[in-house]
Amino acid sequence: MGRDERGVTPQSEDFSAWYNELVAKAQLVDRGPAKGTMVIRPYGYRLWELLQAELDQRIKDTGHENAYFPLLIPESYLQREAQHVEGFAPELAVVTHAGGKELEEPLVVRPTSETIIGEMMAKWVSSHRDLPLLLNQWANVVRWELRPRMFLRTTEFLWQEGHTAHADEAGAMRETMLALGLYTEVCRDIAALPVVPGEKTPGERFAGAVRTFTVEAMMRDGKALQSGTSHYMGTNFADAFEIQYTSQAGRLERCHTTSWGMTTRMIGAVVMTHGDDKGLVLPPRLAPYQVVIVPIGRGEEVPAAARELAGRLKAAGVRVHVDDRDHLSPGYRFNDWELRGAPVRLELGPRDLESGTVVMAMRLGQEGKRTIPLGSVAEIMPGVLADFQAFLLRRATEFREARTRTADTWQAFADGVTSGWASAPHCGRAVCEDDIKAETAATPRCVPLDAPPSGGVCVRCGQPGAYGKRVLFGRSY
Amino acid sequence: MGRDERGVTPQSEDFSAWYNELVAKAQLVDRGPAKGTMVIRPYGYRLWELLQAELDQRIKDTGHENAYFPLLIPESYLQREAQHVEGFAPELAVVTHAGGKELEEPLVVRPTSETIIGEMMAKWVSSHRDLPLLLNQWANVVRWELRPRMFLRTTEFLWQEGHTAHADEAGAMRETMLALGLYTEVCRDIAALPVVPGEKTPGERFAGAVRTFTVEAMMRDGKALQSGTSHYMGTNFADAFEIQYTSQAGRLERCHTTSWGMTTRMIGAVVMTHGDDKGLVLPPRLAPYQVVIVPIGRGEEVPAAARELAGRLKAAGVRVHVDDRDHLSPGYRFNDWELRGAPVRLELGPRDLESGTVVMAMRLGQEGKRTIPLGSVAEIMPGVLADFQAFLLRRATEFREARTRTADTWQAFADGVTSGWASAPHCGRAVCEDDIKAETAATPRCVPLDAPPSGGVCVRCGQPGAYGKRVLFGRSY
Ligand SMILES: [Zn+2]
Ligand SMILES: [Zn+2]
Repeated sequence: MGRDERGVTPQSEDFSAWYNELVAKAQLVDRGPAKGTMVIRPYGYRLWELLQAELDQRIKDTGHENAYFPLLIPESYLQREAQHVEGFAPELAVVTHAGGKELEEPLVVRPTSETIIGEMMAKWVSSHRDLPLLLNQWANVVRWELRPRMFLRTTEFLWQEGHTAHADEAGAMRETMLALGLYTEVCRDIAALPVVPGEKTPGERFAGAVRTFTVEAMMRDGKALQSGTSHYMGTNFADAFEIQYTSQAGRLERCHTTSWGMTTRMIGAVVMTHGDDKGLVLPPRLAPYQVVIVPIGRGEEVPAAARELAGRLKAAGVRVHVDDRDHLSPGYRFNDWELRGAPVRLELGPRDLESGTVVMAMRLGQEGKRTIPLGSVAEIMPGVLADFQAFLLRRATEFREARTRTADTWQAFADGVTSGWASAPHCGRAVCEDDIKAETAATPRCVPLDAPPSGGVCVRCGQPGAYGKRVLFGRSY
Repeated sequence: MGRDERGVTPQSEDFSAWYNELVAKAQLVDRGPAKGTMVIRPYGYRLWELLQAELDQRIKDTGHENAYFPLLIPESYLQREAQHVEGFAPELAVVTHAGGKELEEPLVVRPTSETIIGEMMAKWVSSHRDLPLLLNQWANVVRWELRPRMFLRTTEFLWQEGHTAHADEAGAMRETMLALGLYTEVCRDIAALPVVPGEKTPGERFAGAVRTFTVEAMMRDGKALQSGTSHYMGTNFADAFEIQYTSQAGRLERCHTTSWGMTTRMIGAVVMTHGDDKGLVLPPRLAPYQVVIVPIGRGEEVPAAARELAGRLKAAGVRVHVDDRDHLSPGYRFNDWELRGAPVRLELGPRDLESGTVVMAMRLGQEGKRTIPLGSVAEIMPGVLADFQAFLLRRATEFREARTRTADTWQAFADGVTSGWASAPHCGRAVCEDDIKAETAATPRCVPLDAPPSGGVCVRCGQPGAYGKRVLFGRSY
């Protein structure tokens, strides 16, 4: 595709410009008027709805219930957990006036809901019979961003936040890992993101957490994107809000809590993992339209056949769209759906109709265009889409593996994080992490759960390794 | 049920106390820490999710697309439409500080989104081919309330807001009525609310609208609850935000816009339409649990049979819950599910099991308890639930009809609005509406769409009737 109005800067030239232009031109998002806010347009929002449905089902199937907590939180609530307020204070948006008056106590627009949910949990939990308390909320949150970037860092974003309370550490840790498992599965099976689940090092923990776990995805520029996090809070929030219960033995005990979230930045992850210079490439499980039919030529017969075909595809469970904008040339429409990432395009003209065939073009892959019998399209399509989904995951996995360097020397490490990730022993000291960051812009992404035991001394400072396995480092969004 | 901890004040004694106690004790909602905010608890939120799914499907089926617009709106946006800002200014919550600094321009937390969506529509619409633009958003909004009431008037609430742009008045009016039709249908078929669709009189219009339509429901205290509204904006917002398009003839034209919304106050409507002194009565289409099975006695056999029965009901598409809290007496659990409004309760004890039967108790109706064969429960249940749903709608319709008085004299009018609604000719003058309100606390609820033509002079002032049909008056929430 030439650089017409829909063209985007090639990835190789400027990945960041490619991304910014693409998310706008593919009509996923637009800038909102207030600094750093975004408007999620219907095509982008549909992606989010499809992801949300998958995640919500899994959250419910594992025994959690959805609820809704207030947007506005008294400022004093955040101050009850010292690390928490320290972490979030710089990002808060504050309501000082309401109903024409100045408020006695300012209200912060929730940046996350541990505090207000902690307050309610304390009210709802009294006996061991009330535990575990497994809650989830779908909501908007606001964190003031200095360097906003559509989907990745915006002043307001959408997410789900799970919040649970348990009788003891074991229960809370099982929950923390369960949530991480849901994220790993949704990333892999739905978004075709071969994420690495692992634990954050102490310096990268959530403000107020005892342990933080993450799923890390690699973008096509080699950078990491944290795609979901799950936190074990210990009794930090239970202490701050007095979330306690009477045990079976009749003793008053503090709860152990967790929280975990996945956000609209997942849309950015999908764009940067699968997209190319022609535009988006959407995994079928998330594509608003899995198949787009482009009828060619005017008359009545072709559009009617296109609609009939769409009906059969819909009946086969395929999300299909007929692009009948006949004031636009077929070529323009082809490019448009490449830009917008539809996995499969079907071209149907008078001659195809005569021969009882349709031309199928995949958004990616070496197959080129194929001519297939009209009668079999609906039958083969679910398989075609499943293959394409698998292909995207395989391609992203191979890319991640090729760009992950096992590094035992500083040079290998520095080379690794230039184009991707480095897997290396680390001493675990925050000063050493800071030093690495200053030198290379790379940070520890996680200590992968499934990394094999490995010895060795810190790749940077030579002190003993702290984790008994290699740590994954990379630059990140 | 006695006045134990779960008992509520009888409706006849104090309807308002009954409502406030019930929504809390049935665990639909809890008070949030900031004035007038609410926490929607899982049982209440599930109701909302079920309503949302029904409405969302209808919104999509009629060609609308969901999107998401920012929460925070520059204050100056609201000022562009004079009536709009006048109407909303007293209720605004304002963010003045963010990211540790005072903002150059304060941001209001959206009370509704006409302005910010108008701004984006102006950017997205340029040709007649871009019309109609049919958008919807599910979101939270904030309106500062002086006299908050859970679900009915809260500082923050959840809703959907449809926003559409059209080439002309005819298209926009068709849309306005289509949305009103969706609300009428969802109220009637899902929530069992026999609402009256009609047009608001000029004094009751939405701030900035040319015409406002509403669906009005009658609560069991005879008061009206506005349950959804649909507005034709004319070109008011198109003028303010320059939403315009080039027509087929090549002329620049202003769009005609609409907006329409339904909110979490619907939960309050369901409570106050169907509930009684024992608690909630939920229409099966909205009940989180349509059937609750209470196993009686300890052993292993009964709980296992209850789970097996639940499995069969679930397979038959029934939302079922087994209440196996065996530290609570059967009687306590029975009362609990009456309080929480489950349409059907199934009681299963060792003797039932022996005889291969189960005891079925409906939440309402004269049938009392029935003993039915265990083997046929799953088969008959969908019919039992459909009958119960129809029964609730019929009962509410009869109630509304019995409490609506056709009034041609002031005395009949004043009597009518004491216990319900009055249907009377009215002059249409705002001063006369104000006079009626001062005298009786009743306001014009709507001019019903399907009211037959009717002459007569104003029931209050004797001037000629303005609408050619009777107007519905009532006190309202
Ligand atoms: Zn080191
Ligand atoms: Zn009058």
